Amino acid sequence: MVETVKYANPQSTIRNPQSAIRNPQSVVETIKWEDGILNLIDQTRLPTEAVYLSCYTPEELAKAIKALVVRGAPAIGVAAAYGVVLGIKNSRARDYQELEPELNRVIELLASTRPTAVNLFWALNRMKQTAESHKHEDVEQIKRVLAEEAVNIHQDDKRRCQAMGEFGAGLIRDGDTILTHCNAGALATGGMGTALGVIYAAHQQGKKVKVFADETRPLLQGARLTAWELQEAGIEGTLICDNMAAQVMKEGKINLVLTGADRIVANGDTANKIGTYGVAILAKEHGIPFYVAAPLSTVDLNLKDGDQIPIEERSSEEVTGGFGKQTAPSGVKVYSPAFDVTPAKYITAIITEKGIVRPPYQESLAGLF
Amino acid sequence: MVETVKYANPQSTIRNPQSAIRNPQSVVETIKWEDGILNLIDQTRLPTEAVYLSCYTPEELAKAIKALVVRGAPAIGVAAAYGVVLGIKNSRARDYQELEPELNRVIELLASTRPTAVNLFWALNRMKQTAESHKHEDVEQIKRVLAEEAVNIHQDDKRRCQAMGEFGAGLIRDGDTILTHCNAGALATGGMGTALGVIYAAHQQGKKVKVFADETRPLLQGARLTAWELQEAGIEGTLICDNMAAQVMKEGKINLVLTGADRIVANGDTANKIGTYGVAILAKEHGIPFYVAAPLSTVDLNLKDGDQIPIEERSSEEVTGGFGKQTAPSGVKVYSPAFDVTPAKYITAIITEKGIVRPPYQESLAGLF
Repeated sequence: MVETVKYANPQSTIRNPQSAIRNPQSVVETIKWEDGILNLIDQTRLPTEAVYLSCYTPEELAKAIKALVVRGAPAIGVAAAYGVVLGIKNSRARDYQELEPELNRVIELLASTRPTAVNLFWALNRMKQTAESHKHEDVEQIKRVLAEEAVNIHQDDKRRCQAMGEFGAGLIRDGDTILTHCNAGALATGGMGTALGVIYAAHQQGKKVKVFADETRPLLQGARLTAWELQEAGIEGTLICDNMAAQVMKEGKINLVLTGADRIVANGDTANKIGTYGVAILAKEHGIPFYVAAPLSTVDLNLKDGDQIPIEERSSEEVTGGFGKQTAPSGVKVYSPAFDVTPAKYITAIITEKGIVRPPYQESLAGLF
Repeated sequence: MVETVKYANPQSTIRNPQSAIRNPQSVVETIKWEDGILNLIDQTRLPTEAVYLSCYTPEELAKAIKALVVRGAPAIGVAAAYGVVLGIKNSRARDYQELEPELNRVIELLASTRPTAVNLFWALNRMKQTAESHKHEDVEQIKRVLAEEAVNIHQDDKRRCQAMGEFGAGLIRDGDTILTHCNAGALATGGMGTALGVIYAAHQQGKKVKVFADETRPLLQGARLTAWELQEAGIEGTLICDNMAAQVMKEGKINLVLTGADRIVANGDTANKIGTYGVAILAKEHGIPFYVAAPLSTVDLNLKDGDQIPIEERSSEEVTGGFGKQTAPSGVKVYSPAFDVTPAKYITAIITEKGIVRPPYQESLAGLF
């Protein structure tokens, strides 16, 4: 059963940073694990409604991931880890041998939700390995260990966001204006965010920063989520359509570009929300540095270059009628890749929880592991 | 009084190219002058409804231009010429001296509607000069001459579209796929279009062409108008979000980019719908030629470079609530320039009704006049 839980008006949370929806960095708590239930802020309903969706089963979570109730590479990873716990909590397996096929079924279900972000597979793999390393213990103990491991993955993600923020904030000068694309904030992670986390850290250091947010068609994560997060954090944000980024850069309004990532491969090529690649080219053309912020759980050294990253294509309705109104003629053909790959040559530096790496990425990324 | 006149279901017009909404090139008739009434296809209601809006006064037309019932630089020019006729048709002036202030008032009203496209001022100026050159004739004769001049401007625009089409089609090879931005088709002109006119001409020559249409936020002229026109013309079109253009280019899907223009100045710098500048940079980065198609009425040799072109900024609601649903948090700051300027260095060639010109534009454009 899935039910929604209304929480306080988001405006009120600005006045009350101690409220339940705040995490220690005083940003929105996207994922809450409470009494064995996974509560996710329903991101399809922001910014006009801020409610949590409760998931009791991995099937409900899989549906929620596909529907983008929870999205953002690190957040999907954290949610999936909890999903594994949901999937085995009522298991009647008497030993690991009986538990393993159930575990595999849950992991396969969750792994099939979205193909591009690697954090999903990373988190599921970590859960599987944890279970295996306890395979001689009794099932109740394995369940406990897995629940602890999911919480660890979540807490690690928070710490990683914090560390990325601290490293990345050094790249931001007082008075800078930053362009960001999509949402790489608290809503995309288990903590305060990747790209927005860096901006929050700079803001917390007392630097006066401003942000331009690309609205990020088709699903408007920039307009719906990033603009909302910036308001909540008290940071000046300006919303633009994606096709205005070049003009804003030409007008000298942008000092740096900062985005998140869904998968970074061995040579530094980076998959991220569709449109990121174009923004990177525009930044290069205007002499503006282009930074990516992502935890090491987003780095996939198994892939040599960006051509190997599977790119999810999403339904045409998101383009032609995503807002409840038909905006293109019936029967129109649509191409809608959800991600693109920015070649490493456009990326000035990558901000991770272990520090900032620069080209050549082949060496600098490998050096982090 | 403004009333709407329903015309046949747009689907049915495919089957009946002789129907009233077809012009000789077998494309939609955007502007119809019938019995002293100006009928405009209401472009705010496409693609789900295809109806004409009848304008009886210049005030109604001014409102229609501001609301984008009619849009596209050449179409605005043609409509404004008819608007001058509407403005003086009931005049009781006994001579030109009495008529002139009425004429000036109408011209000022229409000139105040939109600042960027120069065709508006060009058409109004041509109407004013025509009146002045007949100032010694009686008022009824001046009214007749002005009505004829408006029809001439409209017919000229049709011929110009045809000529541009024929010149431009030479740049398109059989099998090419063209990326276009916004709508520079029959709906943007008094004829078959500028950029789309070139594509229609290539199609009519039997070349197999495909088109990718940027949806063109915030008002989705690509999704609503270009995709619709391409369906009507039987040309294969694929709709993408603006931020997908770079990815589509990277995948090798685009052979050339072709857009219209709202104002081209002496050095070749070109104002067009917001997003055009970004597309031009992406084309350059991918080694794809970038062409502009526009009649000489769009060329403004009075301005030295693009920095002198006034850029209209439109309301934030078009960005935050354009789909009939709130898509950004209340109170969000928005920046929404309606146009940008593509520097001449990104433009491979400009297609006009007098031929195709190439850099240096300072000389080649001046040579056309």
